[in-house]
Amino acid sequence: YKPARTFEEVISRIVTHRLSTCSGGSSTICPDYLYDHILAAFMGNELECGHTMAMAVREDARAIIRRDPACETLLEAVLFMKGFLSLVLHRAARRAWKPDGAGGGASGSRFLALLLQSQASSAFGVDIHPAASIGCGVMFDHATGVVIGETATVGDNTTILHGVTLGGTGKENGDRHPKIGRDVLIGAGTKILGNITVGDRAKIGALSVVLRPIPGGATAVGSPARIIGFVPKE
Amino acid sequence: YKPARTFEEVISRIVTHRLSTCSGGSSTICPDYLYDHILAAFMGNELECGHTMAMAVREDARAIIRRDPACETLLEAVLFMKGFLSLVLHRAARRAWKPDGAGGGASGSRFLALLLQSQASSAFGVDIHPAASIGCGVMFDHATGVVIGETATVGDNTTILHGVTLGGTGKENGDRHPKIGRDVLIGAGTKILGNITVGDRAKIGALSVVLRPIPGGATAVGSPARIIGFVPKE
Amino acid sequence: YKPARTFEEVISRIVTHRLSTCSGGSSTICPDYLYDHILAAFMGNELECGHTMAMAVREDARAIIRRDPACETLLEAVLFMKGFLSLVLHRAARRAWKPDGAGGGASGSRFLALLLQSQASSAFGVDIHPAASIGCGVMFDHATGVVIGETATVGDNTTILHGVTLGGTGKENGDRHPKIGRDVLIGAGTKILGNITVGDRAKIGALSVVLRPIPGGATAVGSPARIIGFVPKE
Repeated sequence: YKPARTFEEVISRIVTHRLSTCSGGSSTICPDYLYDHILAAFMGNELECGHTMAMAVREDARAIIRRDPACETLLEAVLFMKGFLSLVLHRAARRAWKPDGAGGGASGSRFLALLLQSQASSAFGVDIHPAASIGCGVMFDHATGVVIGETATVGDNTTILHGVTLGGTGKENGDRHPKIGRDVLIGAGTKILGNITVGDRAKIGALSVVLRPIPGGATAVGSPARIIGFVPKE
Repeated sequence: YKPARTFEEVISRIVTHRLSTCSGGSSTICPDYLYDHILAAFMGNELECGHTMAMAVREDARAIIRRDPACETLLEAVLFMKGFLSLVLHRAARRAWKPDGAGGGASGSRFLALLLQSQASSAFGVDIHPAASIGCGVMFDHATGVVIGETATVGDNTTILHGVTLGGTGKENGDRHPKIGRDVLIGAGTKILGNITVGDRAKIGALSVVLRPIPGGATAVGSPARIIGFVPKE
Repeated sequence: YKPARTFEEVISRIVTHRLSTCSGGSSTICPDYLYDHILAAFMGNELECGHTMAMAVREDARAIIRRDPACETLLEAVLFMKGFLSLVLHRAARRAWKPDGAGGGASGSRFLALLLQSQASSAFGVDIHPAASIGCGVMFDHATGVVIGETATVGDNTTILHGVTLGGTGKENGDRHPKIGRDVLIGAGTKILGNITVGDRAKIGALSVVLRPIPGGATAVGSPARIIGFVPKE
């Protein structure tokens, strides 16, 4: 390996290493190729929810330090948190993804995006479709079992616990997944299904089933989820 | 590697590769041995729910194309869907498994079946007992966290979302797991527990807890699950 | 490899092998170093809930034989059960962990503990903070998706199904996780949140959300969990 000198190089190296040894190896995909693609996405100008990948990943790392009481240093966040590593992979996959009609099809780029999604699902148990749009400063706490569908969006500074699904109802095609606002907190195991909106600063309790829109600032719990209060506006 | 020329050889190679690099490596089990066993099971005549493995895996792949709106080609289904790969491993494990009293015990064959189950659980987060019987055209969508017990059965063309458990109540021994019909849809995170029947074409909502039989065509939701309607008979 | 002659050497070798091939490889951490650390923890006198690691792991293995109807031999328990292997890793991580103010910080020992936690989370989908205290004879059945927080405790002979979280409410810092008694059974997918007590011999049904203390011997189900009965005192 050549020495990593920048934040982007260090993170690309960590992610490549975890995938190369854990779920793929040199015969599925050359680690150097994987590293080069992740780093190129990292250094590129393509925006996701208004942020470059370099900006978004920095905010993702800061979010862990601020919000996870069990995490003390930036180094442990980027080395050990599989939610963080999964999000780096998603951000690289999204830059490889080409939407339908834009020359995607079975191109190498589309398959690279699907490979990154699949490897993150094997290695970390986090399955995010490459076309999903995720803001910056997002934390997947513990992360195992998170599923985020193709047409879902997640706003800045939202926290998503393990086992959360942003999925479809199975009755719709096309734009069929949730739109989550900023500063939202989604509790462990919760399923939010269908093309519905969860407003900014909403809090959804653990193991809720959300099938209707939740307004900003609301606290919702249960199956089906009902609103039990509102946080005071700031 | 020798070149793979048939559907069976390609799928056996993909699965072997994912396990050999991800969860086992050459020192746990020789990849060539693993490949040979999977391919032999694939080419064999042993039936599971009335289908050979070659027939069942073809239908499993077709089911993904038909039912997953995010999947466009057969190639991405068989390369990237860990639910599909887990089911191939289960079908091979089931052919290695010998029931009690049939010369199983701690034979190499029994341990091979348990190894395949364990490796699928590590590599894909899908834990299916080798003795479970699963029909053809079955799709595990996203797949993380699926658990299927020893005496469970799943009918043809059933769709099971991630996080679903077909488990025991902990109070019974022997035949203690659910019997799921054909064309059933089981939503994300749902737990179906005990030796109960879920009839053909039933739909079970996300995060349900099913402890009593569900008749064919019923839609059931909640914890404990209650029936909220029936699909019209075809 | 040098031949493994004792129970401790065999288990350390199995765990090292699973991590070395699955999630780490020789360039993250030298397998010999990993093996040496796990074995040293295994042979040490440090107590967790009153038991040395050697005592606790023996009881963990016996618990699987006694309580899992699908497991027939000790060998299959220690080779194939990722819940067992995760618990070995936790017990080694806990011996590496140094609490705040005890010379921990970013020491090699603290990072080794976090590495073991992170690797268990990648390889087995089981995320246990190294500081958590877990009694002996504990079984994680199926294990995928289990999350246990920093200040949680689990009593002897307790059984925890897959998808269970012993987590925080997100509103507290410091001592913020559940205290689970002895001989407790926690059903699949259940979330127990906050610094609350679950008494000895309690049974919690699948997909429950437990936010208040549960007395010893109680059976509780639902979201939020309500008590539906008591087991007779022995």
